[in-house]
Amino acid sequence: MEHQIVTSFLPLRSSALTIFRAALDAGDPRGAIRRALERAGDRLRVREHAYDLRRVFVIGFGKASAAMAHAVEEILDDKIFGGAVSVKYGHLAPLAKISLTEAGHPLPDENSLRGAQKILDLLRDTREDDLVICVISGGGSALLEFPVEGVALDDLRATTDVLLRAGATINELNTIRKHLSQVKGGQLARASHAPIVSLILSDVLGSPLDVIASGPTAPDSTTFADARAIIARYDLRDQLPASVLAHLEQPDPSTRSGWDTPKSDDPIFARVQNVVIADNAIACEAALRAARDLGFNALLLTTFLQGEAREVAKVFAAIAREIATRDHPIAKPACIIAGGETTVTVRGDGAGGRNQELALAGAIEIAGMRNVVLLSGGTDGTDGPTDATGALADGATLARAAERGMDARAFLARNDAYHFFKPLDDLIITGPTNTNLNDVIVMLVE
Amino acid sequence: MEHQIVTSFLPLRSSALTIFRAALDAGDPRGAIRRALERAGDRLRVREHAYDLRRVFVIGFGKASAAMAHAVEEILDDKIFGGAVSVKYGHLAPLAKISLTEAGHPLPDENSLRGAQKILDLLRDTREDDLVICVISGGGSALLEFPVEGVALDDLRATTDVLLRAGATINELNTIRKHLSQVKGGQLARASHAPIVSLILSDVLGSPLDVIASGPTAPDSTTFADARAIIARYDLRDQLPASVLAHLEQPDPSTRSGWDTPKSDDPIFARVQNVVIADNAIACEAALRAARDLGFNALLLTTFLQGEAREVAKVFAAIAREIATRDHPIAKPACIIAGGETTVTVRGDGAGGRNQELALAGAIEIAGMRNVVLLSGGTDGTDGPTDATGALADGATLARAAERGMDARAFLARNDAYHFFKPLDDLIITGPTNTNLNDVIVMLVE
Repeated sequence: MEHQIVTSFLPLRSSALTIFRAALDAGDPRGAIRRALERAGDRLRVREHAYDLRRVFVIGFGKASAAMAHAVEEILDDKIFGGAVSVKYGHLAPLAKISLTEAGHPLPDENSLRGAQKILDLLRDTREDDLVICVISGGGSALLEFPVEGVALDDLRATTDVLLRAGATINELNTIRKHLSQVKGGQLARASHAPIVSLILSDVLGSPLDVIASGPTAPDSTTFADARAIIARYDLRDQLPASVLAHLEQPDPSTRSGWDTPKSDDPIFARVQNVVIADNAIACEAALRAARDLGFNALLLTTFLQGEAREVAKVFAAIAREIATRDHPIAKPACIIAGGETTVTVRGDGAGGRNQELALAGAIEIAGMRNVVLLSGGTDGTDGPTDATGALADGATLARAAERGMDARAFLARNDAYHFFKPLDDLIITGPTNTNLNDVIVMLVE
Repeated sequence: MEHQIVTSFLPLRSSALTIFRAALDAGDPRGAIRRALERAGDRLRVREHAYDLRRVFVIGFGKASAAMAHAVEEILDDKIFGGAVSVKYGHLAPLAKISLTEAGHPLPDENSLRGAQKILDLLRDTREDDLVICVISGGGSALLEFPVEGVALDDLRATTDVLLRAGATINELNTIRKHLSQVKGGQLARASHAPIVSLILSDVLGSPLDVIASGPTAPDSTTFADARAIIARYDLRDQLPASVLAHLEQPDPSTRSGWDTPKSDDPIFARVQNVVIADNAIACEAALRAARDLGFNALLLTTFLQGEAREVAKVFAAIAREIATRDHPIAKPACIIAGGETTVTVRGDGAGGRNQELALAGAIEIAGMRNVVLLSGGTDGTDGPTDATGALADGATLARAAERGMDARAFLARNDAYHFFKPLDDLIITGPTNTNLNDVIVMLVE
């Protein structure tokens, strides 16, 4: 009896996995690079821009940057004259003409500085008729770091600690960091004589160019005055390293070109093209297309999803119930796609992550509903400290668990979604993808 | 400067209030009754059924039942031969031919029994060619009560206490109650010789007929065996009043007609028409139409909304951001409607209710967004223990509050949405409506 119920859901479960897989595929570095670069002989087209291919240099930083650089090599092989890419320790790929520097993440180390120095040296040697392809992905901010003169790596770390303890926001933290760096906040672009095409895998919701990897090739809207205002706001003069204070508080030679980070009207950006080749929105749009290809009426609810995972699950269940009952907000067979990142307030000592917890809370809410499937998965391959990236729930999940003597509410109470879904074989396991396009939720109602 | 921002939002705020007002209007007892009853001389049409008007009797129970009965009198005045309606103390209306009994709510009292006795007496005197109009609204379960022989009102109360303390669900509680009552679970219908048209204002999400006011004119799927299983499940034999046990555990004379509550195949339901004339879904549909009339692309997200109010607000803000950024799930100018009931885990000592808290949390999340308005309101006129029924937030709310030295996060932390919105003049105050169609949320993004 129970087995029949489970079987009846299988086609819908398989559809949910297919749709989620489409989102993952959109984030695959190689595929995303190949979709972005259209080469025809000596010409390269990137969206609305075209470039002559003479000498091409490849730079990059981020957890996926080796894989991205490899994909660029496959396309532009004969035109590449050199390159320098910073990656996290162990995140390598076979590269012919591009040198790799392994460096620290999430905290920058001396190798982050060495990698940045190599990239800066390379950019300074470029000519105006060269082309620089810059591959950027999550983790780039730590893997590419080059502080201003007089400020040591330890001073940067101490500054971050002081700001976090004071309760500064991530935007405030980044404002300070950009003004202690020679590469962040558009300053990397300044080093190049050649045009730069930045190909960006974004791990930040909404893909703000000035935030991803600290925006090394994007205009920065923050100023030294902003940085000083933050120090005053939190009254941090006594706690910051002397070198940091000295740099931020020196008199403002506003007439000196290249003093502050470059703003959007800076002429250097006329030769910079920033292209987001994959982000959560692109992944969700791919999932949306896949759902429609499978015959679902599909709706993209949001790519800014946030909130406590177990409460967000209740909203999804409420939408499922409305679709099942009265075909709102769309008619059956329906697919709701959402992207973003929920949060989990950990109260128990179980294993899991926000995606697995959302699926578990969802399983409780949709228990007994026929033909509803709820999948929540991360795109980076790891959800919390587990080897799963998410889980899949349907209306029979609770019954199947009960057959094994498992009480879903007890597992949820101790944040133990991993051990709830594992024996049910409902974990989604992909292995690390080295890309992070945040999370994708797929809900199907038939 | 700040004043200009506020002004720019005003048209959108006014639209949100218009749309919410449409939802309230759909729940107005008089209007809902008038839409349901189509009279032409001696004929009455109610949806797909038609009735000859000879002698009409009006019965009813619930907080809005006097107002509903009054509306029926306006339409069927000359045909009404009598009636008996139970209302909450003070919830009166001027009635010509229908007697009112004021009774206890939320706990039934002796007057609840007297009112039920009058209604039973009236029904037993009806003839097959009479027509009974039964008006039902929230609170009806307490206002109409008539226990089985041998069980006293105090026994019923004690039973409820025992079940609640044991952690029984509301469904389990209702199963027991229906089997200790002579009127709940379809048994009221059994007393009538005449056809019954029940006009129902539903305060239960999804409007399950067997749950609203304990379903006095609807088929009941629960049995004595179910009631006994609940007692066994929670091991309550030693705690329940002897009279209750004696009734529930007497041998099952299953051949005796009228022993258990009537099931859906019972012939009495051939002469009963249950019509939900207003509920949360009808209110939300009315809001949806009003939004479309105002030119918005409108989507009804759900009428089963649930979850912690401040977390649900984050999901709405995430949807607003998506609409603003990329016109998903619908294009601007967009209206998202949702109905249901969120919850608030009270941690502070402030004043407010779930709607005001949702609006406050929403104000924090949409702060700075242009052209976004989020309204959350109850349909009964009271949100928590306040004189407001909800509140309205927009992207400038936080800035306006800050001008007055108010920190939105601090107000939210102490569950004090009422005192946050009051000085901003952003509370929604309607006064008690005596109807409860749960809550309605209106979000506009232009």
